[in-house]
Amino acid sequence: MTPSAPTPAYRRLSVEERRSQLLDSALSLFAHRAPEEVSLDDVAEAAGVSRPLVYRYFPGGKQQLYEAALRSAADELRLCFDEPRQGPLLPRLSRALDRYLAFVDQHDAGFSALLQGGSVVETSRTTAIVDGVRRAAAEHILSHLGVSDPGPRLRMTVRMWITAVEAASLIWLDENKEPPVDELRDWLVEQFVAVLTVTARRDPQTEALVRAVLGADD
Amino acid sequence: MTPSAPTPAYRRLSVEERRSQLLDSALSLFAHRAPEEVSLDDVAEAAGVSRPLVYRYFPGGKQQLYEAALRSAADELRLCFDEPRQGPLLPRLSRALDRYLAFVDQHDAGFSALLQGGSVVETSRTTAIVDGVRRAAAEHILSHLGVSDPGPRLRMTVRMWITAVEAASLIWLDENKEPPVDELRDWLVEQFVAVLTVTARRDPQTEALVRAVLGADD
Repeated sequence: MTPSAPTPAYRRLSVEERRSQLLDSALSLFAHRAPEEVSLDDVAEAAGVSRPLVYRYFPGGKQQLYEAALRSAADELRLCFDEPRQGPLLPRLSRALDRYLAFVDQHDAGFSALLQGGSVVETSRTTAIVDGVRRAAAEHILSHLGVSDPGPRLRMTVRMWITAVEAASLIWLDENKEPPVDELRDWLVEQFVAVLTVTARRDPQTEALVRAVLGADD
Repeated sequence: MTPSAPTPAYRRLSVEERRSQLLDSALSLFAHRAPEEVSLDDVAEAAGVSRPLVYRYFPGGKQQLYEAALRSAADELRLCFDEPRQGPLLPRLSRALDRYLAFVDQHDAGFSALLQGGSVVETSRTTAIVDGVRRAAAEHILSHLGVSDPGPRLRMTVRMWITAVEAASLIWLDENKEPPVDELRDWLVEQFVAVLTVTARRDPQTEALVRAVLGADD
């Protein structure tokens, strides 16, 4: 997803390569401007191809390109959550957050535009893509916690923390990336422990979890 | 905002009364269906008036009516935050949450539709209305905390908690309003204290606050 070097026009790309090149160009444009400020001409220019070629790959025009770029970003975000199921739990969470925050840092305004909604091309379909990432994050966390049948209180706690992390990322971008990313990561991990501990007071499943899994990390 | 009893067609309403009657009807429809499933005919029928009359008040059609209904809901939400600045802090927060959760409970699916975005009529304008409510909530909290110049860490903590509360409300509606509303309210207050306490470890302003304001509540 790192924008590839401009491809000389004479090089023949396979259909897959071309498609992925166009998505890269679109994503790096969306990364610096809101979707409504990106035109298909901009994408064609950034990719060094003609506008008709962009249309050949994305006949649905900007909406289709935006959704494909969002889907590609969503896939990349999901990769951030991949973490081997070994070693203490909180360092695993820290490493996943490091990758996630690096993604936020790299995509910057594009991250806000992609995930914040409120774009003129926002539809229930794009919302579903973003919700899918949130759900995947929750499933990863519950699976690392070793919980296969989470009760409503534990589930709600995890989902609330994920939403809070998302809000923190958007605010962090708004605030010129203050506090420094390492502090933000540690702070988010500490908040995770704190909210789980609060839930543990009123939910036996979470209590057992906090004792078994988080206690072992101390 | 409680839907008024159907007004007999022969009663002459003032312009303001009629407008507010149409908004009430629209809001109670949006409260049970997503905006894209509500037509102007539905609003006219619910209000016991003709479709042309709805258009006379909202010549911009559904988009305008939706925005006006959203604005009216936003105003009502802001009223939830009004709380006298006296007595211990946490009970004040509990009372504001009680009113907020009563609003969520009453408007139900309409609350999701109004605040969740992802509607087909979502625009950056409607997002701005919802963001305005979030900002107002943050300002109320900071003012109750007696902070006139919040640093980035305190501000971020408060905004993250507000987002988490919003997420909790949507999940709560999804989960058939479980846990019971009183438990949810207490749990949210406890989370507020917990995340502030975590921030206090790395932010002197928040630390002083936790000691002065929250400590006094124990």
